[in-house]
Amino acid sequence: MKINKNYLNLEASYLFSTIAKKVSEHKSQNPDKDIIRLGIGDVTLPLSKAVVKALKQASEEMGVKETFHGYGPEQGYDFLKNGIKEYYSKHNAVLEPDEIFISDGAKSDLGNILDIFDTDNTVLVQDPVYPVYVDTNIMAGRKIIYSNSNETNNFLSMPDRNVKADIIYLCSPNNPTGAVYDREQLREWVQYALDNNSIILFDAAYECFISDETLPRSIYEIEGAKDCAIEFCSFSKTAGFTGTRCGYTVVPLSLRYDNTQLNKLWLRRQTTKFNGVPYIVQKAAAAVFSKEGQEEVLSNINYYKANAKIITDTLDRLGIRYTGGTNSPYIWLKCPNNMKSWEFFDYLLENIQVVGTPGSGFGKNGEGYFRLTSFGSREKTIEAMERLLNSSLCTTGNCS
Amino acid sequence: MKINKNYLNLEASYLFSTIAKKVSEHKSQNPDKDIIRLGIGDVTLPLSKAVVKALKQASEEMGVKETFHGYGPEQGYDFLKNGIKEYYSKHNAVLEPDEIFISDGAKSDLGNILDIFDTDNTVLVQDPVYPVYVDTNIMAGRKIIYSNSNETNNFLSMPDRNVKADIIYLCSPNNPTGAVYDREQLREWVQYALDNNSIILFDAAYECFISDETLPRSIYEIEGAKDCAIEFCSFSKTAGFTGTRCGYTVVPLSLRYDNTQLNKLWLRRQTTKFNGVPYIVQKAAAAVFSKEGQEEVLSNINYYKANAKIITDTLDRLGIRYTGGTNSPYIWLKCPNNMKSWEFFDYLLENIQVVGTPGSGFGKNGEGYFRLTSFGSREKTIEAMERLLNSSLCTTGNCS
Repeated sequence: MKINKNYLNLEASYLFSTIAKKVSEHKSQNPDKDIIRLGIGDVTLPLSKAVVKALKQASEEMGVKETFHGYGPEQGYDFLKNGIKEYYSKHNAVLEPDEIFISDGAKSDLGNILDIFDTDNTVLVQDPVYPVYVDTNIMAGRKIIYSNSNETNNFLSMPDRNVKADIIYLCSPNNPTGAVYDREQLREWVQYALDNNSIILFDAAYECFISDETLPRSIYEIEGAKDCAIEFCSFSKTAGFTGTRCGYTVVPLSLRYDNTQLNKLWLRRQTTKFNGVPYIVQKAAAAVFSKEGQEEVLSNINYYKANAKIITDTLDRLGIRYTGGTNSPYIWLKCPNNMKSWEFFDYLLENIQVVGTPGSGFGKNGEGYFRLTSFGSREKTIEAMERLLNSSLCTTGNCS
Repeated sequence: MKINKNYLNLEASYLFSTIAKKVSEHKSQNPDKDIIRLGIGDVTLPLSKAVVKALKQASEEMGVKETFHGYGPEQGYDFLKNGIKEYYSKHNAVLEPDEIFISDGAKSDLGNILDIFDTDNTVLVQDPVYPVYVDTNIMAGRKIIYSNSNETNNFLSMPDRNVKADIIYLCSPNNPTGAVYDREQLREWVQYALDNNSIILFDAAYECFISDETLPRSIYEIEGAKDCAIEFCSFSKTAGFTGTRCGYTVVPLSLRYDNTQLNKLWLRRQTTKFNGVPYIVQKAAAAVFSKEGQEEVLSNINYYKANAKIITDTLDRLGIRYTGGTNSPYIWLKCPNNMKSWEFFDYLLENIQVVGTPGSGFGKNGEGYFRLTSFGSREKTIEAMERLLNSSLCTTGNCS
C-alpha cells in the first residue's frame, strides 16, 4: 500500500507550539506574574439560555421511543435549513432549502469540498492566510498561488487579470487581518470568477461581527455570485458553538462547471461520506434563530465587540495602526517601532505579560504584524490594555 | 475550474428509492393493508437513561462560563478514549489512547481515511458489499476488485494469494450478510496483508452483536493486526447513536507504510479537516461505558437479538436457509423457490405486506438473496413472522 505522498509536503506548523513554549518558559521564570492571553481564537462565553434549553429538550426527546430520532437526512433537517434561509433573507440573499447543507463546522466543509474538484486546478489564497486553505490543497497536490494582502491594499487584495486561478479562497471578515471587503470589491472578485470560469470559496465564519450595514455579510448579496461561489458559515462564533459543532455550506443550484451541477456532486459526497449533524445539535442551532436566541447571541457578540473597541481605542491612543476590530473579532496591528512579529511577541510577554499571535505565522505579508482577539473576558481585556498604555510604547504623551 | 470527473463514474443507486416507490404504490392500491418494514437499518429504541442524563448534564455545563467547553482536541477527549481503551481490553485488545480517534461516525471515517492513501492502490471489497466502500473509492479513481462471498464460502470470502490487493475492506459481522469471521479466518487475512504490504480496513460497526465468545470482536485480537489494520467502530448500533453521531477509528502507532507512521498522517488529516465531536456527545458516549450505561445498552442489544431469533426460528421452520441472526442484527436469507431478489421482494409485499431489502442491491453475489433486520419493534417482528408462517411459503407442514 502506498501512502498519499502529498502529506509529506506539508510543513509542520510551529506557530502555536512555539507560543506555548515561550509562555511556559516565561511562566516558570516569573511564577508570580499574571499572563493575559489575547491570542485566543476560541469563544469564552457559555451557550445562551435558549440554546441550552433546546439541547436539554431534544435530549429528552431522544430518550422516548415516540420522539426518538435515528438517522436524519445527511444534508440536515428542514427546521434548521429554513431558519438559515430566513436569516439570509434579512441580508438580501435568497436561498433555496436545497442549497443549504448542514455540517459539523466550516473547517470540515472547507476541507471536504475539495473532494468534488479536480486535482488539476490552480488555487489562489491570500497571504496572510488561514493555514487550513493551504494545507488541505497541499494534501491533494494542487498548485497554490498567493495574492498579497498588505498595507498598500488595506489587507484586501484584489484580482489580478494577468493571473489565472481556478479556485479562489476569500475570507471576509478576514482571519487573521479583520479586514472586510465592501460590495464593490466583492463585485470585482465575482466578475473575475465569472470571466475566468473560477469558483470562489467564500468563508463567512465571522459575518455576525459586521455592524456596518453597507458591508456585505454574504457573497450572495452580490449579483452573479450564485453562478460562481460556495459559501461556508458556522455557528461557532455567531453562537459560541466551537465545542458544540454546527455550520453550514451553501451550494447554489445554479452553480455549474463542466456541465455538471455542483450541488448534486456535493450531495453525493455528503450522503456517501457523512451522516449528518446530531439531531440535538441541529435543534440547538435552530434555537439561535428564535426571538430569545437572537437576543442572547447578539448580546454575546456585542460583548466581544465591546472588547474589540477597548483594544482599538487603546491602539488609537498609542498611535498604533491596525485593521479590523470594528466589523471583526480580530485586530491586526502593525508592530510599533518597526519590530518584527516575534520581537513584538517577546516584548509584550516579557514586559507586560500579554500574549498575542505573531502575524508572520500567517504568511510572509504578516511579518511585522500581530493579531489580537476580542474573545477574552472584559476584565482581562481592560487590564491588558492598561498594561499596554503604561508600557514604554506610550510615546505620544496622551496614553495614560 | 474542473470538477472531479471520477464522480461521473458513480452509478446512481436506485435500491432504496425503488423500494420506496414500490411500497408507496402498493399502499395507494391497498390503503387498508398494514405494511411492516423489516428492511430498516436504523435502530428504533430510544437512547438509554444514562446517556440522556449525561447529555442533559453536559448541556447544563455548556451554559455556565466556568464549565463551558469550546474547541476540544480534534482527536477526542481523554475521558472517552479511556472508556474505549478499557472496553477493548475486555476483548483482549490492548490500545493506547493515542491510537484512538473519536469521530462523528464510522461512515465518515471509512470515507475520509482514504485521504491518506495514494490513488494508485488496488482496492479489494467483498461482494455483496456495503456500497460506501465502493463509492468512496470510485470518487478517488482507485481500481476496485471484488472477492466473491457466496454459499460456497458461507459468505466469508478468503484471501486469494494470486490476487494482489493494497487496501482490503472487511466487515465482520457483515452488512448485509450477517456472516462473522472466526479467529482462524481473520488470521489468514492478517497474514495475507502482512505478506503483501496491504492494509486492512476493518469495519467493526456490529461487533456488539457477537454473543459467541470464540468469535473476535476486534481485529486487534489477532496477532500482527496492529501492523496491518485500521479498525472503525461506532456507537450507532451499540447504543442507538444513529442520530446522535459518535464513532471511533483505531490507527495503531506501529502501522507504517512507505516508512511513514499512518497515525501521524491521520492526526494531521483530522486536525486540518475536522474539529472534533461535540463535547456533549462525547460525554454521552462515555456514559455508555458506565455500569448503568452498559446494563442499559446491553438490554437494548438483547432486545434486537431476540427479534433476530424470532426471525431465524421462523426461517428454520420454513426450511429457508440463511446466514447471520445469531451474532448479527442482519439475517441474510436465500429466497425460497429459487426466486430472484426482487421477485421475493414483490412476493412479500404483495402477499403479506412485509418489506425487506433485495440482496441483489449489494452486488452480483446477492442475487437470489434477501436481507431482513432485527431493528424493528418486537410486536411488528412477531406479526411479520406470523404472516410468513401463514403464507404459501409454508410447505413443510410444521410451520403454523
